[in-house]
Amino acid sequence: MSDRLLINLAILGGTGKEGQGLAYRLAKAGYPILLGSRTPDKASRVAAELNQRLGQDSIRGLGNEEAAGRCHIAILTVPYAAHRSTVQALKGHLAGKVLVDVTVPLMPPDVTTVHVPEAGSAAQEAQQILGPTTQVVAAFQNVSHGHLLEDHPVHCDVLVCGGDDEARQQVLQLVAAIGLVGWDAGPIENAVVVEGLSAVLIGINKRYKMHAAGIRITGDQPPR
Amino acid sequence: MSDRLLINLAILGGTGKEGQGLAYRLAKAGYPILLGSRTPDKASRVAAELNQRLGQDSIRGLGNEEAAGRCHIAILTVPYAAHRSTVQALKGHLAGKVLVDVTVPLMPPDVTTVHVPEAGSAAQEAQQILGPTTQVVAAFQNVSHGHLLEDHPVHCDVLVCGGDDEARQQVLQLVAAIGLVGWDAGPIENAVVVEGLSAVLIGINKRYKMHAAGIRITGDQPPR
Repeated sequence: MSDRLLINLAILGGTGKEGQGLAYRLAKAGYPILLGSRTPDKASRVAAELNQRLGQDSIRGLGNEEAAGRCHIAILTVPYAAHRSTVQALKGHLAGKVLVDVTVPLMPPDVTTVHVPEAGSAAQEAQQILGPTTQVVAAFQNVSHGHLLEDHPVHCDVLVCGGDDEARQQVLQLVAAIGLVGWDAGPIENAVVVEGLSAVLIGINKRYKMHAAGIRITGDQPPR
Repeated sequence: MSDRLLINLAILGGTGKEGQGLAYRLAKAGYPILLGSRTPDKASRVAAELNQRLGQDSIRGLGNEEAAGRCHIAILTVPYAAHRSTVQALKGHLAGKVLVDVTVPLMPPDVTTVHVPEAGSAAQEAQQILGPTTQVVAAFQNVSHGHLLEDHPVHCDVLVCGGDDEARQQVLQLVAAIGLVGWDAGPIENAVVVEGLSAVLIGINKRYKMHAAGIRITGDQPPR
């Protein structure tokens, strides 16, 4: 557990529901969290609320730039409309780091149809902007924030894609730390599937009146 | 059961493993099957083998064109390299029908990286070629043929995408008939996810030494 204290995780654009959910689970797992927002006041307020719920003081609210600058691993949870501008603005702070991109390229109002960005996926778009000194890893898109902010077990596996083996393994470690089952889902080109699955799952939620559809990998393993 | 006898299903390019698996399961469910191949002799031989295994005589081997011409619903199971030419050749026989496209746009030798065709997906490519008189539905790509050719329950859900509501519902009925759980996964634009998942699952099979990884939709439903 103590090793986790050495790794500062930033959640950039972290005051939204998905960001809060990941901050809550990762703080509970023992990581210090830098919760970033364009408005530092809002970040501080949300951090205080989460800290109170956790009964600890491990989440700190900051501006996105300061959070990105001080972290070892950054997690990006912004709406797709803010994706490109946020990544561009934080580029200098992310050099030499791993960026976990949770962004889903939804195109409201029709959020149940898969939209494929020109770069192939949001994660590839981020990788193009950031260049080779930042390792972008796509993960966590399919896990409903509703699950993350509760304390029950999450019945949704996490597919992890990215161009760098070591970065993928690091992210798989974060997934395991918060009690989820992660899968190495291959190169960053596969992010189109992981991101697009979110639109498919939103559609399934609507059509079948479910709240937080997810996926699980099945196979010749013992059933969980 | 008797209604099923009225619906002729063609499995085009059906002598491969996935085609055989679907023919086996659908024949067992009571549907008459027209098993199509470029080489009618091969289709007849494979049909005879499957009939013997089934202890019934409901699969008939034919050329692809004859099978497509005589069927009510066609299922296409060809390697991606043969996709465009097969769809073009059968276009006239598929007008007014539903085509279930099982094709995965894999680009050997790297079959663990998602490849997105120019049309968006193999299913959209087929829809473009066939025009609006044929309803293309993407389905069954993620179910391992190993599962289909065995008699055990299949632990893999089937995501069904397509532009026409009624066609999607018909295909969901076929999925249920062979004992699988199907999900209406929305418009044909979502086929990129369903097709791409196959490459992700092949990668997971390799990395985790599994044989037939699949997916299951989870959510606020009773666990299965």
